[in-house]
Amino acid sequence: MEETRLQQQLAFILELEHLKNVYRQTYVLHEDRKENDAEHSFHLALMAAVLAEHAAEPVDVLHVMKMVLIHDAVEVDAGDTYAYDTAGNATKAAREQAAADRIFALLPEDQAAEYRALWDEFEARQTSESRFANTLDRIQPLLLNYNKGGLSWKERGIRAEQVIARNQGVTEAGSPALGALCYDIIERARQEGLLK
Amino acid sequence: MEETRLQQQLAFILELEHLKNVYRQTYVLHEDRKENDAEHSFHLALMAAVLAEHAAEPVDVLHVMKMVLIHDAVEVDAGDTYAYDTAGNATKAAREQAAADRIFALLPEDQAAEYRALWDEFEARQTSESRFANTLDRIQPLLLNYNKGGLSWKERGIRAEQVIARNQGVTEAGSPALGALCYDIIERARQEGLLK
Repeated sequence: MEETRLQQQLAFILELEHLKNVYRQTYVLHEDRKENDAEHSFHLALMAAVLAEHAAEPVDVLHVMKMVLIHDAVEVDAGDTYAYDTAGNATKAAREQAAADRIFALLPEDQAAEYRALWDEFEARQTSESRFANTLDRIQPLLLNYNKGGLSWKERGIRAEQVIARNQGVTEAGSPALGALCYDIIERARQEGLLK
Repeated sequence: MEETRLQQQLAFILELEHLKNVYRQTYVLHEDRKENDAEHSFHLALMAAVLAEHAAEPVDVLHVMKMVLIHDAVEVDAGDTYAYDTAGNATKAAREQAAADRIFALLPEDQAAEYRALWDEFEARQTSESRFANTLDRIQPLLLNYNKGGLSWKERGIRAEQVIARNQGVTEAGSPALGALCYDIIERARQEGLLK
């Protein structure tokens, strides 16, 4: 029996339930545990709405919000790859493409195409919306890491230069104001000994 | 020294970090723990985007998404009140109003007014967007509870009539299709012994 549109949509919505179980390297601020992808995506969507005026160019806020809500969907299959994990990052693209092929296809055909295109757009960073979304994706863990006393950085001995390299060309491209904030936080973290 | 707009916005964004620590009565599906408000809000925002075509009337999806992202913001102060907790619900409105007065005022004045109005709109259920947002807020825990084998219902001995009463007049008002789904799930849950 053919699935109805609603059944296909619910299958996708329940598939993304798994993002509540994909744990990142960043800690939440007020509990002794790491943040999961659902919480991270919630925070990015909120930031997209509240901080839209700081985007480098005018952005379609709805488009940005949809993009950040599904930007980590592939991690249901591919898991979270830590930004500073060189080996993991070598295979990341292939693992995530396979995941995208499976997960977005759960949706009705028109929406499968729409959401897959949103994910591709986020990855490619060639539009105002995707550049701003990527800025949010970089600044959010930085805010948490800094406000958590650098715990996640200290555990892995991360150096300020690594954090700068990860942000450079990305964070300021989506938002000059958030780019400036980013490098300001990194510098403060270095001065306070949170980053080597 | 006066706070800049960006500082005020960041204060609000970091305040809502606390939603990651407000636990609801609903369990997540794939771990042995309850869901928090940030995860719940993530799921509602995703549902708003994917299920918008099922709204009773055409809705401004961006408006719905912003509304569901902040609909539980007051629980940072007021905590989560279980739908079937009669005593808690008697004081809920006053506790939540006080919380709204404090939390939305963290934002710059124009955004404080915008987000407070969104929260009031959600509570009043007098617009297409707020009726649809409330439908999502009812159907999401129902989907989780049913798919978790009724665990949260069984723990508290919840009866099907209580779940019907909680949904009646609300869930179908925002979406006839999701309303029908809701009563269908309740009936299946009753037949399967998940609800008394």
